[in-house]
Amino acid sequence: MNLLIKNVLLPENDAIVNKDICITDGIIVSIGKQSDDFVADEVIDGNNRLAMPAFVNAHTHAYMSVLRNAADDLPFMQWLFEGVMPREEKLNNEQAYWGSLLACAEMIKRGCGTFCDMHLFPGASAKAAIKSGMKAVVSRGLTGSDGGQRRLDEQFAEIEEFKGYKNIKFMLAPHAIYTCDKEFLLKCSSEAKRLGLGLNIHLSESKAEFEDCMRDNGCTPTEYVASLGLFENKTLAAHCVQLTDHDIELLAKYGVSVASNPKSNLKLGNGIAPIYQLDKAGVNVCIGTDSAASNNSLNMFAELNYMTLLHKGTNYDSTAIPAKKALDFATVNGARALGFDNLGKLEVGYTADIALLDTNVPQMVPLRNYYAAICYCCDGSETDTLILDGKVVMKNKQLLTIDEEELYYNVNKIVEETDK
Amino acid sequence: MNLLIKNVLLPENDAIVNKDICITDGIIVSIGKQSDDFVADEVIDGNNRLAMPAFVNAHTHAYMSVLRNAADDLPFMQWLFEGVMPREEKLNNEQAYWGSLLACAEMIKRGCGTFCDMHLFPGASAKAAIKSGMKAVVSRGLTGSDGGQRRLDEQFAEIEEFKGYKNIKFMLAPHAIYTCDKEFLLKCSSEAKRLGLGLNIHLSESKAEFEDCMRDNGCTPTEYVASLGLFENKTLAAHCVQLTDHDIELLAKYGVSVASNPKSNLKLGNGIAPIYQLDKAGVNVCIGTDSAASNNSLNMFAELNYMTLLHKGTNYDSTAIPAKKALDFATVNGARALGFDNLGKLEVGYTADIALLDTNVPQMVPLRNYYAAICYCCDGSETDTLILDGKVVMKNKQLLTIDEEELYYNVNKIVEETDK
Repeated sequence: MNLLIKNVLLPENDAIVNKDICITDGIIVSIGKQSDDFVADEVIDGNNRLAMPAFVNAHTHAYMSVLRNAADDLPFMQWLFEGVMPREEKLNNEQAYWGSLLACAEMIKRGCGTFCDMHLFPGASAKAAIKSGMKAVVSRGLTGSDGGQRRLDEQFAEIEEFKGYKNIKFMLAPHAIYTCDKEFLLKCSSEAKRLGLGLNIHLSESKAEFEDCMRDNGCTPTEYVASLGLFENKTLAAHCVQLTDHDIELLAKYGVSVASNPKSNLKLGNGIAPIYQLDKAGVNVCIGTDSAASNNSLNMFAELNYMTLLHKGTNYDSTAIPAKKALDFATVNGARALGFDNLGKLEVGYTADIALLDTNVPQMVPLRNYYAAICYCCDGSETDTLILDGKVVMKNKQLLTIDEEELYYNVNKIVEETDK
Repeated sequence: MNLLIKNVLLPENDAIVNKDICITDGIIVSIGKQSDDFVADEVIDGNNRLAMPAFVNAHTHAYMSVLRNAADDLPFMQWLFEGVMPREEKLNNEQAYWGSLLACAEMIKRGCGTFCDMHLFPGASAKAAIKSGMKAVVSRGLTGSDGGQRRLDEQFAEIEEFKGYKNIKFMLAPHAIYTCDKEFLLKCSSEAKRLGLGLNIHLSESKAEFEDCMRDNGCTPTEYVASLGLFENKTLAAHCVQLTDHDIELLAKYGVSVASNPKSNLKLGNGIAPIYQLDKAGVNVCIGTDSAASNNSLNMFAELNYMTLLHKGTNYDSTAIPAKKALDFATVNGARALGFDNLGKLEVGYTADIALLDTNVPQMVPLRNYYAAICYCCDGSETDTLILDGKVVMKNKQLLTIDEEELYYNVNKIVEETDK
């Protein structure tokens, strides 16, 4: 199957030029001028469209999109215990599937092709990802209190169920140090080792987590997790807002990837992760949206914009985290953290996960700089086509893999049932 | 002329309900159920659309949209002297008009009806505002070095030229304390008094401005401007990032309105204005985009989102600057600062400047909370209709007052000519 994106806008040195992207069986085989021996089965007109690698959303909880706008502007504990958890407890797997599919619809419309999910409902996000055409790393959120083993068993069953799908991968996800005791963290670590899986954990998200850990363990959350040997597994740590210099050294030393969620961290009053410092230390920084319960949208363009502006502003340095670097955070760095090889760049040999952006809109005129346009001008709505594995999943802003009418009908029905 | 918005979504207590908005000669005459004696000349279907007051952008430089993406990720001085100024010097009034019209097109598409402009090109932004249907407060940026009186005279001529237009108002705009000497600031102040105009000034934007003023005048920029008596005029101060507690007291005492530009302040490495503290002190806070040379988009939804998230995050308080308050900053507070009475709210007797947002998009589903949806979910592209003074200037995302094709053609031609 040969797909041709004809005459699309791409960067070349400091300019933006028109090129053809040729794709065979989901892989980019050439970028430049279409060769005579490439016969396209399908042609997409790239005129006035800019091509970029589809985003990799390195941290979310897809099912929580059904909880959107249920609890805002509240203290954290009230948000969690009055807004989120009572509704969450009423959800079943089928409802979580619709929530996850809503997340996929939103991510696709905003140019995202891959996400890393931590969930409570086995199968829901994997099924939604498969239905939508997205790639996903899926992990059951594991808490070490009552039912720890049951949750692990659910994870093992889920891995078994989806082992035939190359676009569905797994990590083990001990939820956080404040929901897993030491024994359970060690258990998760040894099970990850046994299964050859990475770990996905919320780490040092809030001041409360940091201070409680100092009080209880005499060290920082990052030091604590390192001391238990968890970082000997390939690890993706979400948030990492409260970090000491030593924590940053540890994350760099162990090759931990950090999924920063700038909007969620701000909205929940948790602060700003030291991304400038993490990046300088050589840490693989990626970007996540977190869930729609704390954000409240899954728009990677917005996170990208926050990622670069926040760290310029708080470091009083307009050169900090330039646009090209931030785009790497949001694409290839995420792919690396999630274990998808050859994903997140527009290069020959890479997977054809490509978003096309309409440049005939006021915020993209004039179009002087490829990276600045993506990072500083786009609100995300410019995305008009999304290609995943060389297949078109959205064309002219119309989703081809998801029935929007059916989706909204089902989500609204769930809200009626669970908001009572 | 009677316009009816039928069955549109509006807040009522904690719910969102369908109502009819009746408009006569540009003024909202009822909100609720259309009365039998209201005969509509034009009906807009409000189904699945949410109505909100059109934004008031309290600080921009519209013509600079032609400079979009000309200079990013650079140190401030390089941005200004190598990126912005050499291009600016090549522009003429006609080109500045197209830049301003590009700004209007972008603002309308993102639900904004009014803007406060500081410019270098007399007539350009006023003409663009008139053409587009927007309201504008226009001020010639006044610098006190060579040519100060000439610039003042240009401003007087511009006021004369547009005095018949009720939607075009004026302020006098001494650019900043570092571009105007003491005598010229006093001159601007006395001229404003003579003409009964307000003042528009960049104030305490950067650490450099703050430190230079301390060195040169032994007081803060805000104290300096206060000591010269400028605040005895109705004043709109843009930025106000670097403020002491005493500065905040002064701004509150003199009723100065503050136009905060969160994205621009971050992007140029200037930091974060103490909005939480200014609001607590009773200062009239409004929101601006600044120009596309430093932002690089004029999307008030993005500023609104930054405004509330930034101050939650940096104050470690998820209840800070709640959505409803931020929306007031972006609408009615701006209208008050700009001297437009009865603007910025959806209430009987108010000017019918109304944006309608499509709610049939993933990020607006489910639609639980009116204010959270606008502040935390919208990226701005939901805006599908904009009504200004009861006239439809955009319908189904199509601009009715601006020819987009002609606009982009002219802007791109200007870029070709001025980027050489």
